Amino acid sequence: MLARSASQTLAEQLAGHYAARIRQRLLLPGARLPSVRESARRHRVSPSTVVAAYDQLLAQGLVEAKRQRGFFVRDGDTLAPRAAAATPEATAEAARLAITTETALRLAAPRRPPPVDATALIRGMFAADAQRPAPGLGTLPAEWLDAAMLQTALRRVMAPAKSASATHVPSSYLSYGEPAGDTRLRHALAQRLADFGVPATPAQIVTANGATHALDICSRALLAPGDAVLVDEPGWSVEFARLTQLGMRLLPVPRGVDGPDLAAMAALAKAHRPRLYVTCSVLHNPTGASLGLASAHQVLRLAEQHDFRILEDDTYAHLAPAHAPRLSALDGLRRTIYVSGFAKILAPGWRVGFMAAPPDLVERFVDVKLLGTLTTPALLEQAVAVCLEQGWLRRHADRVIARLGAARTRTVKLALASGCRFVTPPAGLFGWIDTGVDTERLATDMLDDGWLLAPGTVFHPGRQPSTLMRINFATTQDPRFWRAFEKARQG
Amino acid sequence: MLARSASQTLAEQLAGHYAARIRQRLLLPGARLPSVRESARRHRVSPSTVVAAYDQLLAQGLVEAKRQRGFFVRDGDTLAPRAAAATPEATAEAARLAITTETALRLAAPRRPPPVDATALIRGMFAADAQRPAPGLGTLPAEWLDAAMLQTALRRVMAPAKSASATHVPSSYLSYGEPAGDTRLRHALAQRLADFGVPATPAQIVTANGATHALDICSRALLAPGDAVLVDEPGWSVEFARLTQLGMRLLPVPRGVDGPDLAAMAALAKAHRPRLYVTCSVLHNPTGASLGLASAHQVLRLAEQHDFRILEDDTYAHLAPAHAPRLSALDGLRRTIYVSGFAKILAPGWRVGFMAAPPDLVERFVDVKLLGTLTTPALLEQAVAVCLEQGWLRRHADRVIARLGAARTRTVKLALASGCRFVTPPAGLFGWIDTGVDTERLATDMLDDGWLLAPGTVFHPGRQPSTLMRINFATTQDPRFWRAFEKARQG
Repeated sequence: MLARSASQTLAEQLAGHYAARIRQRLLLPGARLPSVRESARRHRVSPSTVVAAYDQLLAQGLVEAKRQRGFFVRDGDTLAPRAAAATPEATAEAARLAITTETALRLAAPRRPPPVDATALIRGMFAADAQRPAPGLGTLPAEWLDAAMLQTALRRVMAPAKSASATHVPSSYLSYGEPAGDTRLRHALAQRLADFGVPATPAQIVTANGATHALDICSRALLAPGDAVLVDEPGWSVEFARLTQLGMRLLPVPRGVDGPDLAAMAALAKAHRPRLYVTCSVLHNPTGASLGLASAHQVLRLAEQHDFRILEDDTYAHLAPAHAPRLSALDGLRRTIYVSGFAKILAPGWRVGFMAAPPDLVERFVDVKLLGTLTTPALLEQAVAVCLEQGWLRRHADRVIARLGAARTRTVKLALASGCRFVTPPAGLFGWIDTGVDTERLATDMLDDGWLLAPGTVFHPGRQPSTLMRINFATTQDPRFWRAFEKARQG
Repeated sequence: MLARSASQTLAEQLAGHYAARIRQRLLLPGARLPSVRESARRHRVSPSTVVAAYDQLLAQGLVEAKRQRGFFVRDGDTLAPRAAAATPEATAEAARLAITTETALRLAAPRRPPPVDATALIRGMFAADAQRPAPGLGTLPAEWLDAAMLQTALRRVMAPAKSASATHVPSSYLSYGEPAGDTRLRHALAQRLADFGVPATPAQIVTANGATHALDICSRALLAPGDAVLVDEPGWSVEFARLTQLGMRLLPVPRGVDGPDLAAMAALAKAHRPRLYVTCSVLHNPTGASLGLASAHQVLRLAEQHDFRILEDDTYAHLAPAHAPRLSALDGLRRTIYVSGFAKILAPGWRVGFMAAPPDLVERFVDVKLLGTLTTPALLEQAVAVCLEQGWLRRHADRVIARLGAARTRTVKLALASGCRFVTPPAGLFGWIDTGVDTERLATDMLDDGWLLAPGTVFHPGRQPSTLMRINFATTQDPRFWRAFEKARQG
């Protein structure tokens, strides 16, 4: 990786390598840099070169030296200081309530500061080395996607056939379009949701720039700073980070194979009066588990009893059997809001997502959407509508599900052979495995060799150390990875 | 509009007509419905039909009857109640500070509750009757856009020529892409900004789903609830509404022909220690005025003295001469953040915008972008890059500017002939005129005849009554409008 002929010295190159990782949050504040000896070995340079590189990082203020312990990434200018400084009362209150929870309810996780660097994982997803598969990837690999299908759909939208409906205006995607989103897409989505038993009319659907944006709109519309929100633990770190950034108090509910821990949820709901429960019912990230029917029923009863709404994130809908129970189907979109998108099946970069909401919330969501971003690109929404209408998306999903099944079989075998244990039965895109060692340390070490991992710690609001890790079944089939993994686990 | 042969009674149709307008916020809470006699005249039905329709609206809870005064739109379930209920202290504090400002600084506008329905105007923009030009429109009319240019650009992105750079990956728009936005677009934008003297490297540019989204990202990254923010008054109501929804305290600074009232700004800055000044320097919405060079210099001095940043919204950049001074150019992007997009020149529905930021803020903006929406659609960003690289956008802008100049001449003549006065010299897309009558009442009345207006009240954070109104030079050339206007003004 480092080249002797470059215009920079080897030490400068090495310092630049680590500086880039620190800036991209691939090395988090507090993370330890490899020892001088280890770094020298990995990068095939002399120890004195490493010392010179680390000195440069020290001078740039990116790392600090701790006597006898090595070099550590310094805490930079992150989101957290501003937010924390702004609401000392909220922070104190959150701390107080956290202690109450701790002592009164004896819930598992010790509370630590909020995940200020929870974008680390998604940053890593973007920065992943395209040359090799990334076991920590959150999406399907690019070569599993169907670029031709999307191009055909786009061409149809841009130049509709003469036989197309007379009401279709060829360049309707130039103007701002409908505040709630493209009408054609909302009709196609309503049909699709009917397959899941989610009874949404087109008028109940609001589109967004991806499912993440839909979740953001719902959070902003329904919550005010200081509100308590139930979340699954483990769960999706971006959701934790966004809610924290909006000033919410997170109430993590342990997530089991069948659904959330109902006793813990009831106790938290009683103690903290949450306004919302954000959950991924089907093929939950990171565990891959899906909500059981009985659990779903009990969750809705708790929601009614304690008067909180449910925000159901069905991001992995397309990889799951249609009959998997959704809370929104059981509830009929009364107390639930359904969110999904196409990043996990069509193309991560397409950024088309949506929510289906109870009728009385629709206009409020549209208002928040307009204030934050005005409308969404009708061109891309119409292309997705074509894929749905023509049945292309369904056929593509069938192919992906079959391919993913084969990949899962292979990956499970390799993981078990490496001595890992599956915490939940393998299903969907992600495996949730116990490695027996601290996976944050493992992730830091292996990243330096080009392997991106998703350590368990990022799936906990409190970021506690974890021996667990999420693997992507599609991108963890490479025996080279498992060899490197076994070596790193021992070192 | 109402059809006697329809499956609904005339009363049902009329009730449906008003119900739709209320739900779309085209009739705001508190607005008075036309008198029975007037409504009967407009819709060519009998007074008893109108009475039956109003009774249905009453039964639906959409309006209330006030003795001797008529029917009024009821206050629905809006954004405001939640936000206000959540932060009573903040509201009280805001009220207290507002009074301080009033008495101590004798600033112009009496404070009223925040603009809870400030999405009304943009809702109206989307709902505008496509059959006739809308004088209140905020964008160029659709027929002024160049759909063919965009389609050609998209086709190039989807199927790059063989001669294209070897590093270009054909389907790079399928994956999440760069967190900061498409690299090709950021390079093209850096070059474009150099034309304005704004010294941004590609690494300082972060793309967004339109300029509105860029402003939202900056607000969320830089501000915490309760922070004070300087804004131009009059100014863009969506900006006011978003900042209010985020819990900020607005400090309106009167905006003159040459720029903000510097004495008022200095006094507000001293009294309230704002963290940010959000402004539209060039072709300001709604006045069309551009910041003078001397004013720009003084604004930057005040920003330094009182340590606030400046968020410069250059949405109308493409319609202005390149030499118009930008704060970001004078300041060299140290204390300023530059925001712009393509909705006013390329296509409102394309949703590509960006910010250029001081280097130390870039990663913070990327974090907020990722948390709220992950990445932005690279396909649309690459298409914009093609339009910039090929010089197509520049040539298109030249044509639009010439056409707009001719439209402006015609519209100014018609407006003056109707006895309106221009508050600021006509320039750019918008004229800011004094009609001599309350324009909110005028807008409500004329909307019923299909004319969408932008009354002055929506450009004031306090929504005080106003005789001013913003007209779009491109869509207010129709003598039929001016005849209807004169009639409505007298009635």
